[in-house]
Parts: sequence; C-alpha cells; structure tokens
Amino acid sequence: MPRMFSSDHRDRCRNGRPDPFPVHTLKRVDRPTTLIHDDLVQRVDEREHGFNRAARGDFGPRLAAEFQRQVAKYPLSGALGTMTGVMGRLVEGGGAQSASRTGEKPAMPGVAGSVAPGTDDPGRMALHIKETAYFLRADAVGICELPAYAVYSHSRRGGMPAHLDHKYAVAILVDQDWRTASAFDGRDWISNSMSFLGYATAAFIAGILADYIRRLGYPARAHNALNYQVVVPPILLWAGLGELSRIGDTVINPFLGPRFKAAVVTTDLPLTVDKPIDFGLQDFCGKCRKCARACPSRALSDGGKEMHNGYEKWPTDVQKCTSMRVGNPKGAGCGTCIKVCPWNKPFTPLHRAVNRVVRTVPAVRRLAIWGDDLLGYGKAHSDQQWWLDLEDKDGVLNVPGRGAQRK
Amino acid sequence: MPRMFSSDHRDRCRNGRPDPFPVHTLKRVDRPTTLIHDDLVQRVDEREHGFNRAARGDFGPRLAAEFQRQVAKYPLSGALGTMTGVMGRLVEGGGAQSASRTGEKPAMPGVAGSVAPGTDDPGRMALHIKETAYFLRADAVGICELPAYAVYSHSRRGGMPAHLDHKYAVAILVDQDWRTASAFDGRDWISNSMSFLGYATAAFIAGILADYIRRLGYPARAHNALNYQVVVPPILLWAGLGELSRIGDTVINPFLGPRFKAAVVTTDLPLTVDKPIDFGLQDFCGKCRKCARACPSRALSDGGKEMHNGYEKWPTDVQKCTSMRVGNPKGAGCGTCIKVCPWNKPFTPLHRAVNRVVRTVPAVRRLAIWGDDLLGYGKAHSDQQWWLDLEDKDGVLNVPGRGAQRK
Repeated sequence: MPRMFSSDHRDRCRNGRPDPFPVHTLKRVDRPTTLIHDDLVQRVDEREHGFNRAARGDFGPRLAAEFQRQVAKYPLSGALGTMTGVMGRLVEGGGAQSASRTGEKPAMPGVAGSVAPGTDDPGRMALHIKETAYFLRADAVGICELPAYAVYSHSRRGGMPAHLDHKYAVAILVDQDWRTASAFDGRDWISNSMSFLGYATAAFIAGILADYIRRLGYPARAHNALNYQVVVPPILLWAGLGELSRIGDTVINPFLGPRFKAAVVTTDLPLTVDKPIDFGLQDFCGKCRKCARACPSRALSDGGKEMHNGYEKWPTDVQKCTSMRVGNPKGAGCGTCIKVCPWNKPFTPLHRAVNRVVRTVPAVRRLAIWGDDLLGYGKAHSDQQWWLDLEDKDGVLNVPGRGAQRK
Repeated sequence: MPRMFSSDHRDRCRNGRPDPFPVHTLKRVDRPTTLIHDDLVQRVDEREHGFNRAARGDFGPRLAAEFQRQVAKYPLSGALGTMTGVMGRLVEGGGAQSASRTGEKPAMPGVAGSVAPGTDDPGRMALHIKETAYFLRADAVGICELPAYAVYSHSRRGGMPAHLDHKYAVAILVDQDWRTASAFDGRDWISNSMSFLGYATAAFIAGILADYIRRLGYPARAHNALNYQVVVPPILLWAGLGELSRIGDTVINPFLGPRFKAAVVTTDLPLTVDKPIDFGLQDFCGKCRKCARACPSRALSDGGKEMHNGYEKWPTDVQKCTSMRVGNPKGAGCGTCIKVCPWNKPFTPLHRAVNRVVRTVPAVRRLAIWGDDLLGYGKAHSDQQWWLDLEDKDGVLNVPGRGAQRK
C-alpha cells in the first residue's frame, strides 16, 4: 500500500531523479564486484535449473511429485502462481504471442508499424522507461546491455534453443513485503506466497511495459518467472541493482536486501545503461555468514568463493536448496536466507541512516552484524502473523500440525 | 514503489489494525451521508452508462468513432487497457470462467470442493481478507453487505440479465499516482493512463483475491472496469471507503481523495462488514465547488443536490462529461475534477495533519479551500512531466500540437 508516502519521499529525495530509492548515493563501478570471466561463461540450459531437475525426477520421485503441488498446496501461493502463469502467456505481442502459444488469439498487439517521434534519445528514453515502470508501481528499476551469456541456450519448454538478440534489458524489482518478512520464520506456509507476490506483480508490470514499448515501435519481450528467456542475476548485476551474495546466485539490493523478485523487459529501444554498484557486499557477506548458518538444508557455504561457469562466487548445493523449497514438509517453499539476511530491512529513516553507514564504512560492518542479532532481527514475529496456516492435501485444506502449534 | 515506508508507517500507526491509512480515526455512521431511499433505487442497466451510450452513438457519430480509439490512441493507456481486458477474463473460476468466454480453457480453478477449516469466523476473516489485499498491494480496502440495488439489471455484454446473489462485497482501491496527478493538467495525454493504472492494478489484485477465496471453498467473483456485474459507488459508500461528492457519482476517500480506481470482489465468505464514514464531505463539497468551476465540459453542477434514482446527490450532465472524456481532442480522457479536488493530496505528515483538522473542524474548511488555491494546488506542475505527448492516428504516432507547445 504505502505508496501514500511516495510523493513525499520523492519530493524530498529525488529532485528530478527517477528512482524513489536514493540510488544516486551508491558507488558505481565499471564491472560487477563479482569476478566474471565473460569469455568463460557458458549459456545456461533452462532445463538444468534446480526446479526443472526436481520436476523431472533427478532428486527422486518424492520431490518430482511434490514439485507438482508445491505452489498449489497453499491457497494464496496457488492463486498468485496461477496469475503468474497468465502473465507468462503475455510476454510477446501479436504473431509471436500466438506462435508461442496454442493458437490462442494474441492478447497484445505486435510491434507498431512506425517508430514514435522523439524516442531516439537514449538518455531521455532511459529516464522515461524508469519513470513509466515506477508509475506502474515497480519498486526498483535498472537498465543494462543484455549480456549474450544471460540468454538461455535452451528453454525448459520442450528444450527449444532460445534466440534473443535484443540489445538492452530493463530489470524490474518488486518487494516481497517487509511486514510479512518480519512475521514469518523463513519457511512456513506464507513463504512461497511472498515469492509469487514478487513474481506475479513484477510480471504484471513487465508485461504492460513491454506492450507499451512495442506500441512505441520497438521490439520488446517481457521475461517472468513462468516464461524466461534470460538468466536474471547477471542482468541485475550489470543493471546496477545489486551485488551477488553468499545466498547462492542471489543478488542483494542495497535497499530491499534479498527480499524481492525480478522480471525483465528486453528491447531494442535505445537506452542509456546504468553501471554496476559496489556497496561493500562482498566484504559484508564474507564476514556475516548468517544465511549459511540458518539454512535448514545446509545448502549455503560458510566458506570462501569458488569458480563456477566463469563466476567467482560462493557455492550453493542446488539439490539441497531445491529439495527444501520444493519438499518443505512443514511449510510452502523456503526463504530462510532472505529472512535472516541483515539487508532485509524496511526503508525507514533509521534504517536508511544505518544502511548508508554500513555501505560506506567497512569498519562498522562487524558491529552491525552483531547488533542485528542483538536487536532480534531474523527472528519470527509470529504475533504479527496475518496469514492462515493451511495445507491442501488431495484437494482438501487442512490446518497442518505445526501451524496449529503456532496458534 | 513507496512500499518501502510501509512497515515503518504500519508499525507506528496500525497497532494490529489491518489498514495502513489511519481509518480508525474516521467517524463511523450507520448510513452513508448521502440520503439513499433504498426502496426507490432502481437497478441500473449497464448499457445505459455514458460510455456505452457513446459507443452505440447516442452522442453522435464522432463520439461513437472516438470511443473505439479513446484508450488506444495513447500508447501507455493502450497497454494498460489491454491488461485490464485480460483481467476482465479472469473474474471467475472453472466452469463459470469458460462459460463466460469463448470456450477458452479456464485460467483459474473453480470453488474448492470443501471449505477451509478456521474460515467460519466473520471477524477473523474480515481482518484476514483485508491483510491479504494489502499484502497484494491494495491501497485501501473496505467490506460491506452487497446491496441488491448495486447489482446491474443487465450487462452491457449482449444485454444479458445480471444474476449475482453473493452476500458480501470487498472493495479494493488503487491510487492513480499522486506525482503524476501533481504534474498533469487534468486532461492531457496521461489522464486515461492514470485511470487505467488504477483499473488494471485493482483488477489484478481483485482477480487474485477472488481466486484465493474460491480456493478456501467459497464462491467469489472479481468485478473490474472491463467486466462488472456491480455498480461500484454504493459499495464504496456502504464499505466506509468514502462519501459521495460533487463530482458526479464519484466517491471521495478521505486519504486518496478522488485519485483512485476501484475493483470489487463479491463473495459468500462470512465477513464482518465496515460501517459508512462521515468526514464532512457533504459540507465541504457544498462550500468548495472547484470541480464544477474547473470542469472543461461544464458537466458538474455548482448548485445544490437533487433526487436521482433514490439518491439525493449533486447532478451531473453525463453526456457532457462522457463527451469530454471520450472526445478530448487535446489529450486522452479527462480527470480535471480529480486534479483540482482539494482532497487530491499526498499522504505526507503535513497533509495528514491538515487532513485530520479539515475532517473534524467544519469551521476551518473555507480557509482550507482558500489556502489550497493560495498554495498552487490544482495547478499543472509541467516541469515534473515524465510522460511523452503522443497521439496514435490511424496506426501512426504523432506529437500532438499542444504537447509540442508544452515542451
């Protein structure tokens, strides 16, 4: 809701800048703070992602079965997942739309026959596209050139080779809701719904934005959780929306922490791109380790970085992480790493001030990490629980044991 | 975006109450402040609404033609209108869904076969449904019993008699964006996009919420701008979301003013209802008259109330209002009344304080109305214009003359 503060905040902080968050205070760098050997990174086959491997049985028959019900087993994540699926059918316009689907009438028009006048200034268009995304209620937006290695080699949909030659990527972040993140324990029944709140809402915004760009006369495709042609993390790094963290392959935004989901619009609309950011996360994650210690499946490493497909990053055990998220017997999904991350905070005046100091003064980081525990962050404030503990078993909703205990 | 303030604001103001806006400070009354003779109100035939009359030619051939392009003539409202249309196909689940459309596979499941345990407490469910809508990023939510006269007699879709016997209505409000409302002049090219931002986003939230309620085992239908079975204003009055204003048939919310659009979910889920509110708007609108003076089509009255279909309200010339919104030659749509309304403000600490005084102290209202002009509210702050002035003519986008002059 709290758009009600927007104008106030924008008037005070933005001074004509498009971003509601004070991104102008961030240190910009030429390359992501994670070492990437661009020439060594291999394009990823979407079929090899953890969820798809679980679905096809690589992690055993139980997880293959659980994968089918993991979203629908909780009614709110089920509804959000269904809406995200609808958005997955609205990523392209006109012919491409119907071509990509089962002969369904295209819901959106294709690329306009002529280019809109005044849209050839990359600087003006970058500003305009960000303003448009914020008007559509995005929480953070960044733009980069689309790295070739950020395009999947093959789609999970029938293993079709992916072809995408758009020059630019616009990344849209949507908050998973701080209040819920403060109340939940990281892996109870609302967890998947928080993910799909971000997925569905970012997909909704990206779908409208891509349609808008096509109406301006430029090719554009939306990419969302249920219909990607791109790998999101490198796009977030190059678009200056965050740094790669100890939470495997997860990018942390300095203002939202890991508490967001992203959708992307790729396009050929000429855009001035953003630069990567450095807010000290490589040093911070090196010292913190809370996600690794809290991870219920021990999927995260509390050690050092390793080379993986051209990236020097903290390693993750994808099977352990996926098994917990898909097979969680006492909840729906898992976001324990998001829950306990010290960057998972509301953007209040106090936190804004602390945030800036921690970003800019390395010496205070150990103190901040220690104080975070002292102040009880990372704990479940179950007195604030607003959701119902329910589990769908064979079409019947029951109150699961653990939920009953929490009541 | 500014959900970043939510937790802060909620923690300070909510104390366990579901609503982010301080609705607990509002005066509650037993009946809407507008006199309604419940027994005299006739159900409305949707085909007789201004837009539908314009579409069928009641207001002449030019407006009938303009109606077809009024949303698509501006690319952003076109994209938002297309998404709203998609949401218009997602109001029901299962069979009803496919029955209501052209044999398309239902996108959403129907009502669950069994009722979720613990959902039979109306008080708990009212709180839960509000919390869920706010989690889905609604800006304001209210609940009432569905008045029989709020159901259309006939649908504009083929004139089918409307049948809806749900007991409750949950109304969801979405802000049209204060920053844009401050920048625009009320009737330039972004106007329709502001309306459809509210329509599309409220429809998105209502569609997910109705699906969620059906998964809990209760009938539920979403109602949005492109697929209503209900008349929205009386629902907003009974749900305590606002009072009927001088702006014809428009309900003003004490915190959003008229700067919102609504979607509704009707259901049989047992819910405790809200009571109507009285924040002095009948007295305020009696004194203000800014909307009537600013209306470019002279559609609003600066006189007194009149009886119309059982309501004692300020009259509107529907043909003049519709003709301006559909036929606006120098913009897309018209929201001049929303622009100049003194209740169209951001929810900043200063405005929150003034808001409370104006609501509770009748004597200061004339001063507030005078001061509003003095401080330049209601003026277009075109230096803040972020959108493009564009007009689609026969599939080609041009920069319209007036837009060029403003540059």
